[in-house]
Amino acid sequence: MHSMKPKEILLLGPGPSPVEPKVMEAIAWPVLGHLDPDFLAIMSETTELLRGVFETGNNVTLPLSGTGSSGMETAFVNFVEPGDKVLVGVNGVFGARMADMASRCRAEVVEVKAPWGKPLDPGDVEKALDANPGVKFVAFVQAETSTGVLTPVEPLVEMAHRRGALVIADTVSSLGGVPVAVDRRGLDIVFSGSQKCLSCPPGLAPFTANERALEVLRGRKTKVPSWYFDLSMITQYWGKERFYHHTAPVSMIYAIYMALRLVKEEGLEARFGRHRLNSDALAAGLRACGLRLLVEDAYRLPSLTAVCVPEGVSDLDVRGRLRREHGIEIGGGLGELKGRIWRVGLMGYGSRRENVERLLAALCGILNDLGFRCSADEALAAAARVYAGPAARGAAPSGGGRDGGCVK
Amino acid sequence: MHSMKPKEILLLGPGPSPVEPKVMEAIAWPVLGHLDPDFLAIMSETTELLRGVFETGNNVTLPLSGTGSSGMETAFVNFVEPGDKVLVGVNGVFGARMADMASRCRAEVVEVKAPWGKPLDPGDVEKALDANPGVKFVAFVQAETSTGVLTPVEPLVEMAHRRGALVIADTVSSLGGVPVAVDRRGLDIVFSGSQKCLSCPPGLAPFTANERALEVLRGRKTKVPSWYFDLSMITQYWGKERFYHHTAPVSMIYAIYMALRLVKEEGLEARFGRHRLNSDALAAGLRACGLRLLVEDAYRLPSLTAVCVPEGVSDLDVRGRLRREHGIEIGGGLGELKGRIWRVGLMGYGSRRENVERLLAALCGILNDLGFRCSADEALAAAARVYAGPAARGAAPSGGGRDGGCVK
Repeated sequence: MHSMKPKEILLLGPGPSPVEPKVMEAIAWPVLGHLDPDFLAIMSETTELLRGVFETGNNVTLPLSGTGSSGMETAFVNFVEPGDKVLVGVNGVFGARMADMASRCRAEVVEVKAPWGKPLDPGDVEKALDANPGVKFVAFVQAETSTGVLTPVEPLVEMAHRRGALVIADTVSSLGGVPVAVDRRGLDIVFSGSQKCLSCPPGLAPFTANERALEVLRGRKTKVPSWYFDLSMITQYWGKERFYHHTAPVSMIYAIYMALRLVKEEGLEARFGRHRLNSDALAAGLRACGLRLLVEDAYRLPSLTAVCVPEGVSDLDVRGRLRREHGIEIGGGLGELKGRIWRVGLMGYGSRRENVERLLAALCGILNDLGFRCSADEALAAAARVYAGPAARGAAPSGGGRDGGCVK
Repeated sequence: MHSMKPKEILLLGPGPSPVEPKVMEAIAWPVLGHLDPDFLAIMSETTELLRGVFETGNNVTLPLSGTGSSGMETAFVNFVEPGDKVLVGVNGVFGARMADMASRCRAEVVEVKAPWGKPLDPGDVEKALDANPGVKFVAFVQAETSTGVLTPVEPLVEMAHRRGALVIADTVSSLGGVPVAVDRRGLDIVFSGSQKCLSCPPGLAPFTANERALEVLRGRKTKVPSWYFDLSMITQYWGKERFYHHTAPVSMIYAIYMALRLVKEEGLEARFGRHRLNSDALAAGLRACGLRLLVEDAYRLPSLTAVCVPEGVSDLDVRGRLRREHGIEIGGGLGELKGRIWRVGLMGYGSRRENVERLLAALCGILNDLGFRCSADEALAAAARVYAGPAARGAAPSGGGRDGGCVK
């Protein structure tokens, strides 16, 4: 048999992110039965570790047997009933996906839009809540993977709760890299993905829901339309009952278990700091290259940086050459940003100084070659100033008015 | 960190089944982006290999990003619309699950029951079809994992098609171990699981649908209620468009790709023969022990044998000791068969003579210890006669009237 074993690519796109060697060891552990006591022990530790990274005491906290989007689906199909009013913040692909899912639950969907590359405007959300009394759920994306925007969630939670609405939060690209803080912020229903800042292969969706949410679930008038994602049945397997629902994806559970152990070992604060530092260094380097960033600093997601493709340069050429000549993957834009931005992920194990420097050097080389003048020396020096600390950082270009959009 | 790496258990339960070493190597291949050309090439080969094992030319043939039950959900949510009449054959847990899923699609469900341990009766199905004109789907489980019954599908397909109904077939415990033969038998919508006769870890659901089914999908009046399992969107990613839907579970795809290569290397006919031979040897050995089988020979599933727990013996004791003292997992009964049967899987890589012999020896030892007299010598000799070939096999106990139920 010819081998199809792929050569390693440095994953600096919007996810999947690079996986730590220990996680790749764990994924190949001997498969056990889904009711084997040794496997049940790993499940228990996994839920405990997940509570740690979500910063929650929620009993219902588990990895769902599907990729990140299955977490989104679980959030909607379990809690939203036909006719419910759901306000959805849409400032990128994943907000739009939420609106789509809510509509498939036959909800009455109220969309509050913000330009792609901007956070949701709490004023707009408040206005929409006032104009639509009886909203039962306020759904938003904390970390928009399609744009690299981090929306501050506190005001949204506050105005939802003040009206008795529950919050549904997408934390796919933030969990483990940016504070999610489920309990402190009062997020009611939260989902994520395994393949971003947790640095586990794709295939699982960490999920948590609090007691207020479970009350709504218990009070449903209609049956949950999905059997596979029926949370009441899934929690009977993940909870004390250990009642068989569907066969757990055993190898993936091993992987996320190990990934979560590594998160705990590093510590959340250290991990958040690392993501912020490397992201700031990358941003400084890109700006020193003369590139614009899509998102202004206040809302820039530490795990994902959106860079405007400069005029006269082909998105696909650059990404193709990065992969072929340098073994680096970065992402392109989605939807209305297709061809207009690159998405650079520094997620989990991928958020490291050597990766920042390797990318800046490679990108500068290619851009120069394509006629866009930039200096790798300057880019690397700007990044180095960030690593040197706040005193030195003051000298780095701040971006200022230059960022905040890729309009040509 | 203390290691939680589990020690290996011989998986002779109803799945997951033992995984070949080459598949465990593949699952740990470097993770690539879900749009990386090398990964897309592996996806393409995977679909081609899946067509081989399903024995179909169906364009829509792919592994879904969820465990076997997600294949069932995909079959129902995409094709069944509210108000559709769905006939479901129920002769075990998984038939009942189909009826549950159909009802969540707000279908009008017609259940045709058969006793657990028996196949569906085509006469009963025909009567129900006559009594319920306008049935649009006939759904059944070819291989009931909860009982070890193999239902002959040809008569069911014939009577469904004669009335213009489509067939939905659960082949979770048969694909790769027992002929499924999608095209030859005219199965319209078919799903399976990765962790049974394909000997891949759990987490993927092989799926295929033919052109007749896709026409129904295209003619839907309502939106598919699931976003995650929306087949039209999923096939845009798995098809030529390579349009992003959700991030593929990359490592699991590597694993099933390699598992399918190994199936092809062995050849389907050889694989079916191996499953049949080892199952016959196991059955002969169990009968020589004085044990009854739940299912009569004509309908006994080669990949899974249900054995009646003998009077005076504790189900849990035996299974606990098998695991603790011998490192072997077998399954218990589900639902109404809980405590009444053991389920012994000889699936994929697990279907081997050494496993049959190891289990017979261990089980006889434990049973004797618990006061149920049986001879390992006789059990192993009976199995050996099966392996010696048809001439010698004539002397083996046939089971005859002794099987076909575990009523005490």
